[in-house]
Parts: sequence; C-alpha cells; structure tokens
Amino acid sequence: MFDPFGLEVLGREQCLSLLATAGIGRVVFTARGLPAVQPVRFVLETAAVIFGAPAGSPLFAAADDGVVAFEADAFDEALESGWWVTVLGRARSTGEPARAWPATTSDDRWISIPLDVVSGRRLAR
Amino acid sequence: MFDPFGLEVLGREQCLSLLATAGIGRVVFTARGLPAVQPVRFVLETAAVIFGAPAGSPLFAAADDGVVAFEADAFDEALESGWWVTVLGRARSTGEPARAWPATTSDDRWISIPLDVVSGRRLAR
Repeated sequence: MFDPFGLEVLGREQCLSLLATAGIGRVVFTARGLPAVQPVRFVLETAAVIFGAPAGSPLFAAADDGVVAFEADAFDEALESGWWVTVLGRARSTGEPARAWPATTSDDRWISIPLDVVSGRRLAR
Repeated sequence: MFDPFGLEVLGREQCLSLLATAGIGRVVFTARGLPAVQPVRFVLETAAVIFGAPAGSPLFAAADDGVVAFEADAFDEALESGWWVTVLGRARSTGEPARAWPATTSDDRWISIPLDVVSGRRLAR
C-alpha cells in the first residue's frame, strides 16, 4: 500500500522487524514548549522500546510520563531508498531492560515507550 | 566544553561543518498536537537548511510558518562515538535552492529553516 506521497506504508510487523535492525533511535519531545530531538541507543522489547536518560536531563523530564515520538531509520548512500519507523506513545520510567548496556552516567534512568502506535514508510525508486 | 551529561558541546561552526557532511536530516514537528518526525534530504545554504515537502502533507502543513526542529546525526557502528546537530527555527516556504535534486512529486514545495539557533553535541568514549 502506498500513501498519497508515493511512499510505501509498512505494516506493524515490518516496522518491528526493521526497528530490530537499528542501533540508534531518536526521541522527539517538547522542551520549554519547543520541539526537541535527541539520539539514543535503545533496546526493543516485546511490547516497548527502552532507552536510558540521565535524571535531570530535558529528555528525562519530557519522557517521564509524557507523550513522545521515537524514530529510527536507514537509507542507502545515494539516498534513493530507505525506511523509517515511528513509535508514538506515553513514555514512562521503567526498570532496567534484560538486554542493557553499561550505564553511561551513574544517574541514568530507563524509559519505556509502549509499542501501541507504530507506523513506518519505505522509499524505493 | 562539556554539558552536565558528559557530552561535548559543539560550537556553531563545528555544527555547520558537520551538517554539511550529512545527506539526510529529520524534521521534527507537531501534527494534530502530537510529536512527529520525518526524514528528508536537504540542502545546506549559507543562512538556511532547505528541504522539500509535498503540498498537502502533514510536514508541509507544519513547516509552512511553524516552529520546527531539524536534526542530523552520525554514529560509528559500535555506537560509541558520534555527533548530532539540531537547528531550531520558524520554517517558511521558499524558492528552489540553487543546488536542488529532482523533485520527487510534482507538487513538492521548498521549505527553509533559518540557521539562527544551531546546537550540537558530540559523544566520544
């Protein structure tokens, strides 16, 4: 299926398969009323995306019980094909994921975004 | 200079040099009151980032005289080093950039974001 702008609309399972191949995602949030974005490493669990944020950071403030978007993507070098997936949901503090990496700072907290609203597009020429 | 979270704070010139190496950026905007993000190809001009968006798309609706963030980044494969740069500003319709790529759809419009508020971080372990 294609959207009105010529992009292939990906189904949920395709989106989750592609997300599993990405190492970096980007959390999109609002900070002081303005749009903000921060790249994060993440873990894809069965029902959520989980990432770390230092307590006291704008990211943690926005992601602790706030609605955020999470995006991951990949494109070929010629930028002629690629995909992106977005997860939209209410982020919450959570426990350490089973597959965690070493904390970068001592006050890192874990944040989860439920995989309720998942969408994706694929570009191919 | 480092921020409180151990990330190197990049100066404006460093940010612009890094932006010039990126092929894909991501526009962060609000659609129906919710955070949204879309990857775009872009052109870096002296005073603005310019990208295309189809008329009628949620991206165009948000970026036609709306405040948006624009982000580009790059990380090594081990995700142990990398950078990201964010441009924040009021986006506006503009003319075709000097260095444009072929329009993807016939109703593509060009949007510019002024390089007024530029910030960046670098991660190195």
